[in-house]
Amino acid sequence: MSRKENISSSVIKRLPRYYRFMLELKAQGVERISSKELANMMRLTASQVRQDFNCFGGFGQQGYGYSVNQLHDEIESILGLDSKYGTILIGVGNLGRAVAAHMSFEERGYSLEAIFDQNSKLWGEKIRDIQVQSAEHIEDFCNKHHPKVAILCIPKEAVGDIAKRLYACGIRYYWNFSHYDLSVDYDDVIVENVHMSDSLMILCYQISEKEGNLD
Amino acid sequence: MSRKENISSSVIKRLPRYYRFMLELKAQGVERISSKELANMMRLTASQVRQDFNCFGGFGQQGYGYSVNQLHDEIESILGLDSKYGTILIGVGNLGRAVAAHMSFEERGYSLEAIFDQNSKLWGEKIRDIQVQSAEHIEDFCNKHHPKVAILCIPKEAVGDIAKRLYACGIRYYWNFSHYDLSVDYDDVIVENVHMSDSLMILCYQISEKEGNLD
Repeated sequence: MSRKENISSSVIKRLPRYYRFMLELKAQGVERISSKELANMMRLTASQVRQDFNCFGGFGQQGYGYSVNQLHDEIESILGLDSKYGTILIGVGNLGRAVAAHMSFEERGYSLEAIFDQNSKLWGEKIRDIQVQSAEHIEDFCNKHHPKVAILCIPKEAVGDIAKRLYACGIRYYWNFSHYDLSVDYDDVIVENVHMSDSLMILCYQISEKEGNLD
Repeated sequence: MSRKENISSSVIKRLPRYYRFMLELKAQGVERISSKELANMMRLTASQVRQDFNCFGGFGQQGYGYSVNQLHDEIESILGLDSKYGTILIGVGNLGRAVAAHMSFEERGYSLEAIFDQNSKLWGEKIRDIQVQSAEHIEDFCNKHHPKVAILCIPKEAVGDIAKRLYACGIRYYWNFSHYDLSVDYDDVIVENVHMSDSLMILCYQISEKEGNLD
């Protein structure tokens, strides 16, 4: 099934969740599922599910449901998860360590190839079979291996300098855990931010609204 | 300035970012800013900024710009960041440790009161002056202190049981780092998810689109 152009970003944002449910259904041995069943599982409406899947071609048969395998493979391919984008991670504090150790990079389209930190005490330590090395080696590594993606797990204050160096090395894709607004500095980069404190503030709004603590 | 009802969720989602820029402007000693300047800083359009601020009353004066202090205070109050919602954190792996140690809970509307883990080796360890305690104490603590919010930094497999216990303790607000879909089980909870692997997949889609690796 070929992918349609211009899938809306709101559909794209829902795809990872669909994908996670497909993984689960596959693991449970479920082979087919109706839009209604899937909608119930995911707390969506059946028409929303059908609409979403229609965006990239639709592959249900009336009264027969969707093939879980086909949906899984299709969503995987739309997201590009069968890629192996060379990736480096910078910053091995608790967060960087959690990210390096626990994310399934290989199953999400990435190949984690190097880990850097400026703290010499960490150099040589192995995280998922990759030795942490000095941040001074970033240029050498990039010149040799041309990674495409950088994961930034460093404090905001450190991002400006590091980003300048990474950009000069040709890296244009960033997974950014800091509050530094990379896209403000660089026009042609793609940044996916994980702004944990924004998420915490959104929750605070929702609680305050529910608790009646807002004027 | 009083808050309007029914601010759209897309405006709410932008508020934390506005808030971060206000913090920065305050730190730089900037007192007034025009919608155009702010829009430039944030890579938005001036009309978008004005529209957003109009949603909650608007407080710019034509040709005179916005007061940074007033905007800061107003957004803080809209988000409810002056609250002190009692909060517990469960799971002190690398991620839980990073969250416990580095988030500015007090400035985001929360008061972190207790940290739990099932691993006895961690009991007694102090993270930001809070002793990690056995997850068996959750009920005791909740009965005594009635926290409102639980932060879940535990593996997906563990969430079902823990959530059941937290729900029984009356906790209805969750900051969830696992892939467990809490809102599927419970109708009346508010969950803010940080799905890091979804974010990684979205980035993969964007890279694949840019690199022309999608059919």
